[in-house]
Amino acid sequence: MSLFAAEIETVAKAIIEDFTRRGLTIATAESCTGGLIAGALTEISGSSAVVLCGYVTYSNQAKMDMLGVPALTLETHGAVSRQTALAMAQGALYRSGAEISIAVTGIAGPGGGSAEKPVGLVHLAAMSRKGSTLHRQMRYGDLGREGVRLATLETALEMVKQAAQDAP
Amino acid sequence: MSLFAAEIETVAKAIIEDFTRRGLTIATAESCTGGLIAGALTEISGSSAVVLCGYVTYSNQAKMDMLGVPALTLETHGAVSRQTALAMAQGALYRSGAEISIAVTGIAGPGGGSAEKPVGLVHLAAMSRKGSTLHRQMRYGDLGREGVRLATLETALEMVKQAAQDAP
Repeated sequence: MSLFAAEIETVAKAIIEDFTRRGLTIATAESCTGGLIAGALTEISGSSAVVLCGYVTYSNQAKMDMLGVPALTLETHGAVSRQTALAMAQGALYRSGAEISIAVTGIAGPGGGSAEKPVGLVHLAAMSRKGSTLHRQMRYGDLGREGVRLATLETALEMVKQAAQDAP
Repeated sequence: MSLFAAEIETVAKAIIEDFTRRGLTIATAESCTGGLIAGALTEISGSSAVVLCGYVTYSNQAKMDMLGVPALTLETHGAVSRQTALAMAQGALYRSGAEISIAVTGIAGPGGGSAEKPVGLVHLAAMSRKGSTLHRQMRYGDLGREGVRLATLETALEMVKQAAQDAP
């Protein structure tokens, strides 16, 4: 029985095995995916040695309280922005003590879109304690709520692999 | 496109609709499900008005740091215990400001089981700010890692509905 598609599971398994071998840990910070990144990683047996924790920060208040995202960042740039994604990744990294963090914030729809920030817009950030900072702005288009969430999950796992490349 | 089974989605939708109508909010605290409860609730469009946040506390340190579970509780009763589930639910309720919280901690397997605490043992706790405290100990048996996680998700959603009955 498997919840996630085989391709997702394959990447998640590769990450958990690689991190286990290298003694690396990870923390997730999720808005639009609502826990699916942590859910996919923890599907893998042995993930408890790698996944320290996940912050599902759906409200702005949670982004501030749980991850230390500055109110000014949210006010100035909005919850779906490069700046917020980076602040979420940084908060997750330092509050958890993990070596790698991944953060996502976006508009899964069907509501909440605008001309400037349409449904399918997602900002992702990954950081390593060693100093890597990655950011991607994705415009998946209106794939439907679950489509956007699953596409985001896929991109997030890719970025985790990438951010881990320079880790100790 | 839907990640979760139709039955899960139906219950999640009923919860989000009911909570929206009544102005209730929820926070999740997940160990063995690793984010799937928050993931299922946030699959529903409009859930951002209801789901404040989720704490995926996979490590003991995360249970202490993010939810205030006492070290003594973890030492004395273990991470998979009634006491830890209740402390997680309480931490989620008070740290998030939500009206309802749900917490789960268990042994999804395939490793980590013992004679006393076999694979498939899960403790769940739900609390409402109004005063409801629910606890269930489930012994799902060895359904496989994903089977235990999905069975836990199903029980958790049932308990959320139950805990919300006395809410304002």
